[in-house]
Amino acid sequence: MQDLLIPKMTVIGTGLIGGSLALALKEVGAVAEVTGVGRGLDNLKKALELGVIDAYSQDAEAAVVDADLVFLATPVMSLPVMAARVLPCMKAGAILTDGGSVKEHIVNEIEPLVPEGVHFVPGHPIAGTEKSGSAAAFASLYRDRRCILTPTDRTDQGALDLVRRMWLAAGSEVVIMDVVKHDRILAAISHLPHMVAYALVNAVASNDRYDDDLLKYSAGGFRDFTRIASSDPAMWRDIALTNREALLEMLDGFESMLTDLKQEIASGNAENLFNFFLRSKERRDALL
Amino acid sequence: MQDLLIPKMTVIGTGLIGGSLALALKEVGAVAEVTGVGRGLDNLKKALELGVIDAYSQDAEAAVVDADLVFLATPVMSLPVMAARVLPCMKAGAILTDGGSVKEHIVNEIEPLVPEGVHFVPGHPIAGTEKSGSAAAFASLYRDRRCILTPTDRTDQGALDLVRRMWLAAGSEVVIMDVVKHDRILAAISHLPHMVAYALVNAVASNDRYDDDLLKYSAGGFRDFTRIASSDPAMWRDIALTNREALLEMLDGFESMLTDLKQEIASGNAENLFNFFLRSKERRDALL
Repeated sequence: MQDLLIPKMTVIGTGLIGGSLALALKEVGAVAEVTGVGRGLDNLKKALELGVIDAYSQDAEAAVVDADLVFLATPVMSLPVMAARVLPCMKAGAILTDGGSVKEHIVNEIEPLVPEGVHFVPGHPIAGTEKSGSAAAFASLYRDRRCILTPTDRTDQGALDLVRRMWLAAGSEVVIMDVVKHDRILAAISHLPHMVAYALVNAVASNDRYDDDLLKYSAGGFRDFTRIASSDPAMWRDIALTNREALLEMLDGFESMLTDLKQEIASGNAENLFNFFLRSKERRDALL
Repeated sequence: MQDLLIPKMTVIGTGLIGGSLALALKEVGAVAEVTGVGRGLDNLKKALELGVIDAYSQDAEAAVVDADLVFLATPVMSLPVMAARVLPCMKAGAILTDGGSVKEHIVNEIEPLVPEGVHFVPGHPIAGTEKSGSAAAFASLYRDRRCILTPTDRTDQGALDLVRRMWLAAGSEVVIMDVVKHDRILAAISHLPHMVAYALVNAVASNDRYDDDLLKYSAGGFRDFTRIASSDPAMWRDIALTNREALLEMLDGFESMLTDLKQEIASGNAENLFNFFLRSKERRDALL
């Protein structure tokens, strides 16, 4: 059994990410009391009804005053604004942590705002589904998934250790990583694929050579391949804006790989094409 | 009940595609006797044992002599070669049809070889799984899927009608389409996405800024998105070589869409980014 106990926790944004952490920690007895904060009253009531939280408030400042740990689980662009509001109200020794998909931007914005005696630990649980809202939350979302924590020189070691134990209690494997490395890795394995999927759907749909809607001929393969293009546009706008540099670098790398492939197709080089596809298949199969 | 009865059918290539058609037609009594032809003796024995075929032969020329219909289900590049071997041996009135994913190349290669009195009907059932071999074949593979037939000026109407009824008997919806249009549509909804997936996996895997293998951080999203990069490299080499022109055009369209997106990311235009992602999400969601 884990020996962590957070007496009072406040979750700002009680949707899939925030709600699932609350449920996971309650399940193992790692938190005594969870207060939910959000803009939507219906969602907060639903969260209370489902036992995701024990109380709710629409007043973020008041809701963090006696919290031992505050988890920020709003969209990326709202994280610094919300941090600016709640940090001055937090008690000495309390910890602010977040679940944002981009870390360098968040750290640069939030760290200068942290008052003496309050601690900030930047984090990113690599988990999610295409659903949202407190009704989508479930206790096992983080089980056997990776959670990346990106401490800086200014991060308090005790606070980092507590947040690490919190994610372990939720069932995750915790990886400690530099913020810049985090943003580059996520740009490669998550942000780039989303950009590619969005561009692919728009490219195929805008091919108007025939009156026919090309997409109606698409079978399961296209639907599966483009599922991530159904993701929330506001969330991905924020990620594209805040992880711009790493994302543009990955897009350049992908474009040059695609240019190589085009070259091989144009010149009809059977052996090089086979090797290009085989190399990719072997790398992909190694993920299974 | 359907009233089609093909007395003798020969399936060349008794894997997933050929085997499933045999099983589907047997199930509804649309074929009396199926002979399987293939290079692998083990696969043919397995097909016989599983009831996919009623007899087998490794001598393609001999196996088509008394066939009323011959279905070519080998990889794309082998189709013209196999057609060249069997067409001179087929009886008057017999029909050759195929299941190749690319049609213009196949039609250009095969039509000049068709002897007087024998008919060729080019076709492409839009169905498949990532598995292969006769053990992967199942009777319902083509049910509620589209099968595209691409007749030309030279195609016999009676033969076209029989092949159309054969696919209806297998449970498919049959669409008649021009060869060029077929190849462009498939380039857009199938061939382009495969090229993009192969290039994406290679781009991410070859990012060697860190000692770490980036791919090990990939969660379910990346795995799902790149599943089609696990497809058979030989099959995709053949498709890339034989549908080159349409594929290069689609790649150009995709590249220019990606360039637009990169521009919006680089300039940090929040509204345009949101609209780009929203447009894609709406188009993708409309497929469900």
